[in-house]
Amino acid sequence: MAKGLPKRSEDYSQWYNELVKRADLAEHSAIRGCMVIKPYGYSIWEKMQAALDKMFKDTGHSNAYFPLFVPKSYLSKEAAHVEGFAKECAVVTHYRLKNAEDGSGVIVDPEAKLEEELIVRPTSETVIWNSYKNWIQSYRDLPILINQWANVVRWEMRTRLFLRTAEFLWQEGHTAHATKQEAVEETLQMLNVYATFAEKFMALPVIKGVKTESERFPGAVDTYCIEALMQDGKALQSGTSHFLGQNFASAFDVKFADKNGKLEYVWGTSWGVSTRLMGALIMAHSDDDGLILPPSLAPIQVVAVPIFKQPEQLEAIREKINVIRDAFLSRGISFKFDDRDTQTPGWKFAEYELKGVPVRLAMGPRDMENGTIEVARRDIRDKKTVPLDQVVDHVVALLDDIQANIYKRALAFREENTHFVDNYEEFKNLLDEKGGFIWAHWDGTPETEEKIKEETKATIRCIPIDTDQPEGGKCMYSGKPSKQRVLFARAY
Amino acid sequence: MAKGLPKRSEDYSQWYNELVKRADLAEHSAIRGCMVIKPYGYSIWEKMQAALDKMFKDTGHSNAYFPLFVPKSYLSKEAAHVEGFAKECAVVTHYRLKNAEDGSGVIVDPEAKLEEELIVRPTSETVIWNSYKNWIQSYRDLPILINQWANVVRWEMRTRLFLRTAEFLWQEGHTAHATKQEAVEETLQMLNVYATFAEKFMALPVIKGVKTESERFPGAVDTYCIEALMQDGKALQSGTSHFLGQNFASAFDVKFADKNGKLEYVWGTSWGVSTRLMGALIMAHSDDDGLILPPSLAPIQVVAVPIFKQPEQLEAIREKINVIRDAFLSRGISFKFDDRDTQTPGWKFAEYELKGVPVRLAMGPRDMENGTIEVARRDIRDKKTVPLDQVVDHVVALLDDIQANIYKRALAFREENTHFVDNYEEFKNLLDEKGGFIWAHWDGTPETEEKIKEETKATIRCIPIDTDQPEGGKCMYSGKPSKQRVLFARAY
Repeated sequence: MAKGLPKRSEDYSQWYNELVKRADLAEHSAIRGCMVIKPYGYSIWEKMQAALDKMFKDTGHSNAYFPLFVPKSYLSKEAAHVEGFAKECAVVTHYRLKNAEDGSGVIVDPEAKLEEELIVRPTSETVIWNSYKNWIQSYRDLPILINQWANVVRWEMRTRLFLRTAEFLWQEGHTAHATKQEAVEETLQMLNVYATFAEKFMALPVIKGVKTESERFPGAVDTYCIEALMQDGKALQSGTSHFLGQNFASAFDVKFADKNGKLEYVWGTSWGVSTRLMGALIMAHSDDDGLILPPSLAPIQVVAVPIFKQPEQLEAIREKINVIRDAFLSRGISFKFDDRDTQTPGWKFAEYELKGVPVRLAMGPRDMENGTIEVARRDIRDKKTVPLDQVVDHVVALLDDIQANIYKRALAFREENTHFVDNYEEFKNLLDEKGGFIWAHWDGTPETEEKIKEETKATIRCIPIDTDQPEGGKCMYSGKPSKQRVLFARAY
Repeated sequence: MAKGLPKRSEDYSQWYNELVKRADLAEHSAIRGCMVIKPYGYSIWEKMQAALDKMFKDTGHSNAYFPLFVPKSYLSKEAAHVEGFAKECAVVTHYRLKNAEDGSGVIVDPEAKLEEELIVRPTSETVIWNSYKNWIQSYRDLPILINQWANVVRWEMRTRLFLRTAEFLWQEGHTAHATKQEAVEETLQMLNVYATFAEKFMALPVIKGVKTESERFPGAVDTYCIEALMQDGKALQSGTSHFLGQNFASAFDVKFADKNGKLEYVWGTSWGVSTRLMGALIMAHSDDDGLILPPSLAPIQVVAVPIFKQPEQLEAIREKINVIRDAFLSRGISFKFDDRDTQTPGWKFAEYELKGVPVRLAMGPRDMENGTIEVARRDIRDKKTVPLDQVVDHVVALLDDIQANIYKRALAFREENTHFVDNYEEFKNLLDEKGGFIWAHWDGTPETEEKIKEETKATIRCIPIDTDQPEGGKCMYSGKPSKQRVLFARAY
């Protein structure tokens, strides 16, 4: 057991907090609501970024960078947008400090007041559409397919590392199109990119759907999302893709001349995922001993620990390890040899379990005699001794197997914790006893949605979009007709 | 001539501004002092980032992320530091907007005032050392070798794209060490990384040196820098590496127990380069027709333009181009085939000249008959027709040659514009007539440095550190003794 990590079954929330801290992923800073992402945590985020960035570029997008600050008046141009973000805006009002006259230190210089206050961007639609206005004249200027990697700030009162912080890192795609159809297709394409990323890289099965009106992004016509199930039975929204219609184009007066010279408003989309994905990754797979990382995102995929008493033994082991290290590296696998003599092998085993390294090798005097090496996989308790000259092939296959197994396990967990419910009492009991995903009928009204939320804390995560033949029924709450089941859960 | 770009010889400053705009590198945003980095400009920055990031990791550094906000009190802890940055701080004072009671829109909610104002980071020493305090107890926790890629804000009154903007992108390394020697070595190591990057990737020769006291980073013991010469004879500081001594450790009370259990303050360094490098890259190499990019940093290294009248001709050319494209891609060379029929070949030639694409291929009916292709290099006016089956090898070698030639040309320019001067009148005349780098004797006093700056606008760019046997002499201004020549120039 890794140094007293709390057990998930006893205190899931505390387990998460401690795990994030002990695995050196992140910590709270002294600045309210802002986190420090530590090197090990950041290196996982870098792997996520690299994979996503490639997917964005493969679908024709380019990166760019827009200003951190949003003039207050921009935010106000789209009514729903300002309504949605006004309550969590960090506001810059001055641009200079000066020495206090009483010598007590520096104070904000009252004479250096901005004419218009600047908001630290909570999202960049308004700044970007204000630029697009100058970039778009004709249909020849479309589509614009841009992504930005950036920090954003939403002043949150209750924060949790990765899941909800005042400042977080994310990417935000912002595209502009000549037709509604093209913009809708882009919105769905990026939703699918997110779903593929979650499943292929994060080993995280997700449900794709569209949000109800009350959960929509402020300023969007439709918000699509991917929803994943965490081990405590709560849902986590892991990415959103918004069809903006012509809302921002009309707020910022962005028109283009079509082939016939007719002026039309431009159609828009925006889509984003954030460091919140780190929270999803941690909570979906890890156990009471620490992190479990899918090999696709593990900064160290294979670690080798030597078991030795004498320096000569270490050197003999090192010689063997060097050979396999080179073989791993040439196959694109990240490999670490932990030859420190300041820590015991047992300490190291626990440490790499805590850090979620997918495969741990160990080599001691008996292995040296036998020409073998011990291979332990992190996802299940399984160790095996294999001939040294076969270990590279063995581990390469094993990494694939681990990636697949973690996904399969998460999927099995989700299936076990997904229920079809037609009765509101049963719904409430299920939520209290087990949580999980619940497919239930809903009459389609915001009123019913709100009542259910008030009474149960469960929200409609999404209306699924992959359903071929939606089955009709009656709303479990109002008894009114429902066209299809929607996904309910308590959520992060 | 590319669409009326001003000539360098007539208005260098206007040439630069127009070039940045027309080559789609960046533009001013409507937010005071903040720029938008457009996709083409950003893709060059991404190449810079990738090369630097690898160099940082190869020297043992890891990336991490620290908060955007610096509490006002942190900045004040190091006296020189706050003195240096107070005049350009963007200050967050509130965290919420609300609807105005008169219905006129949103206003800053006066009730949502922060207890302590937050500065948008102008640099992160204070935030990071406040974290290091918790990370460092013993010599075993050292060294800490961390880098951060981030945006920073320094409220500048007069801004120029890339060279001086209120918000800019950069990387900032922050390291902590047990000994002074190790910290000094780190400082110099990173200076050398920057110099190597400038010379190898940017094709930009640089002078390495140490800043005088008056030009030192606020809070540093020593600031090292690399200085490059632009085509208008002005210097551009292209990277700095600071030996912080124990200044931030003592301001934030960061001590470690050495091997004997004795408590000591930790030694620190910080080092950074920014999107300013984009300005250096543009100004060092480009000409009146547009950008000249070194192949190492060019987003598109090779572009092919078909010359055709009929669609069938295009298809025949495409077939040939596809083969060489695959060969280029497999050799890691970025390649673009511009098959648009909406623009003429001539327009495309000018466009890729403007954008600095190192090699442009053209293929028309005669080439199809002869089995040839035209190869034009951007750095010098040179075209050549080569057999199609040799073009890939030819271009691969040509790219290396272009990279070397651009460097050689910049070095020759610097040598022509470097002068050794012993007479103050001559110094002033030279500055007014030609500019350039001037090696001159200085008596080592801030007073003389300040007088020279006032009278000539030239500053001491650095005291060189690569001089084996410094030659002594007399200060050109005061006549007092000088130990070695220092580098003077007017600068950006």
